[in-house]
Amino acid sequence: MIIREATAEDWPAIWPFMHGIIAAGETYTFDRDTSESRARAMWMLSAPSRTVVAVSDDGTVLGTAKMNPNHMGGASHIASASFMVSPEHSGQGVGRALGEHVLSWARAEGYRAMQFNAVVATNVRAVALWRSLGFTIIGTLPEGFLHPTEGYVGLHIMHMPL
Amino acid sequence: MIIREATAEDWPAIWPFMHGIIAAGETYTFDRDTSESRARAMWMLSAPSRTVVAVSDDGTVLGTAKMNPNHMGGASHIASASFMVSPEHSGQGVGRALGEHVLSWARAEGYRAMQFNAVVATNVRAVALWRSLGFTIIGTLPEGFLHPTEGYVGLHIMHMPL
Repeated sequence: MIIREATAEDWPAIWPFMHGIIAAGETYTFDRDTSESRARAMWMLSAPSRTVVAVSDDGTVLGTAKMNPNHMGGASHIASASFMVSPEHSGQGVGRALGEHVLSWARAEGYRAMQFNAVVATNVRAVALWRSLGFTIIGTLPEGFLHPTEGYVGLHIMHMPL
Repeated sequence: MIIREATAEDWPAIWPFMHGIIAAGETYTFDRDTSESRARAMWMLSAPSRTVVAVSDDGTVLGTAKMNPNHMGGASHIASASFMVSPEHSGQGVGRALGEHVLSWARAEGYRAMQFNAVVATNVRAVALWRSLGFTIIGTLPEGFLHPTEGYVGLHIMHMPL
């Protein structure tokens, strides 16, 4: 697996699994009916933000991450990031590799911390992954997320000093 | 004092005190050199978001607030808001009146909670005001804000169920 800059040519490989994840509405705060063009505009970022793909040896796009400032002004030293892994390729360390890549990027860019604004509490694999990379839950919005089958669940804010 | 919709005609009265607050960089995560046109685009919102002004009996603009969804999709039941009060008119209950107005708006719009994403810990008057209205600090980003004289200080996330 390699992680490299996402290009316009990668989008047709990203959108099918991204669309499934957004439409399921279990793990992300995107509108569930987000159109392809809007999703593309929200995900495919340009400098100083950045979007990458994780690609297998045979060229298959396994997952993607975007990274960007979380705040402006006096809080512009805090970065954020988002991740989507193709369900076909889950459990293969793609999320972890993307997470490590994003943390390296943020350190290299001079950020002092990474903050995730909205990690759905029932997304236990993601929570466990971020914890294993050093993140802590610094707060939880009670009933912050309406899960399609679980009802209202917590929405974690996770943080890691860099 | 009345609170009413902000119009384009109010902007020349808003910008002088807003500019001072942004340039001081002590309480807000705006870039300190934010231009007037960018500030206007960020502050003067249209439906479903909304911007209001607090106006004295003689028509003076005392302060302003904007209110908007904080998240999308499964978290779209959480609102956010921002407030600026002219320093000339601080201590007159303008912030409290705007806060109460915003909470009423959010309830009427069907939001289930209000979340402030970035309350600077040294802004003790704001923290005390929001607490008195029912907000709690659900988490603090350690060293989340670089204050121009205090150095790195905490950045609170405050929350109130509606």
